[in-house]
Amino acid sequence: MATYTIFGTGNMANAIGGVLAAGGAAVDHISHEQGAGATITGDVVVLAVPYPAVAEILGAYADQLAGKTVVDITNPLNFETFDSLVVPEGSSAAYEIQRALPDSIVLKAFNTNFAATLASGTVGGSGTTVLIAGDDGDAKAALAAAVIAGGLRAIDAGSLKRAHELEALGFLQLTLAAAEKISWTGGFAVAN
Amino acid sequence: MATYTIFGTGNMANAIGGVLAAGGAAVDHISHEQGAGATITGDVVVLAVPYPAVAEILGAYADQLAGKTVVDITNPLNFETFDSLVVPEGSSAAYEIQRALPDSIVLKAFNTNFAATLASGTVGGSGTTVLIAGDDGDAKAALAAAVIAGGLRAIDAGSLKRAHELEALGFLQLTLAAAEKISWTGGFAVAN
Repeated sequence: MATYTIFGTGNMANAIGGVLAAGGAAVDHISHEQGAGATITGDVVVLAVPYPAVAEILGAYADQLAGKTVVDITNPLNFETFDSLVVPEGSSAAYEIQRALPDSIVLKAFNTNFAATLASGTVGGSGTTVLIAGDDGDAKAALAAAVIAGGLRAIDAGSLKRAHELEALGFLQLTLAAAEKISWTGGFAVAN
Repeated sequence: MATYTIFGTGNMANAIGGVLAAGGAAVDHISHEQGAGATITGDVVVLAVPYPAVAEILGAYADQLAGKTVVDITNPLNFETFDSLVVPEGSSAAYEIQRALPDSIVLKAFNTNFAATLASGTVGGSGTTVLIAGDDGDAKAALAAAVIAGGLRAIDAGSLKRAHELEALGFLQLTLAAAEKISWTGGFAVAN
């Protein structure tokens, strides 16, 4: 079974770590305080940090990330306006990370899930579904299996190009929650 | 109460007409067979046709559409590849329609709902929610009220810029259904 190193110690980092650990996976975290000098022990690395913190991680850890699966969970909002994303139009944070890490396998996942729904396993009566996009089918299947082992549902959402749509969904969901039109324990559920 | 003219007689046109009629609104349809010569009687016009059919309607009916609320429900997929949209990156069908109809109030709505969920009123275990984007608050509120009167839920999803995100959501949902990862009676539900 793959081992996981999660960058970040916030709500999302802890919720994702909880799901993976519940499925029996070994999980460790690298905190911001550890800076640039930590050793990545996991086979799969989850970037569970705000998008503005990603560039520093890529700069410091690019060598260690080579050959690994890198899971991008970010929603690259302009947090000043809450009205646009900071990645180029048509692109996605995940695509930009893949360009910066050509020797890694980048997946997009978890960005459409609020932390509370990862912890509870439910979104308004439905089981929480993790949508996963990426160009490597084996890596997607392995992450999906780990998520399902942890008690959630998982759907292969397509190629890494679909990260654009997943980030649009995550963006929309965040704007609805910020406007109190949905709650942070709800959001988009996926019904079969 | 506003009256509605729906372009189209397909599954979506009929499902939307059914919701509005259930709420007590007067609804009529203009079919493709009526061509360019019909009279639009409704205060609100719903373009419930495939996106490639919109340009012809705008060309033939621009004068009649001036001053009215125009509801765009399209998902402008490239139906050959199912891998991209045919509108410019960062834009949306709704935004392009608004540019073509500067004297109309364009709203985006219904594009994230499969026809079956409009008819049944449920997605998974949740009530079907119609997401509405647009720049005119009164027009959005009136459409939301008509949808709610028809037995569904409605959420103001923000300005017309958010049509980009709604179309990304609709696109993603269609790809998942086409790949049989979700069913045409399911899809994205919105949990409060």
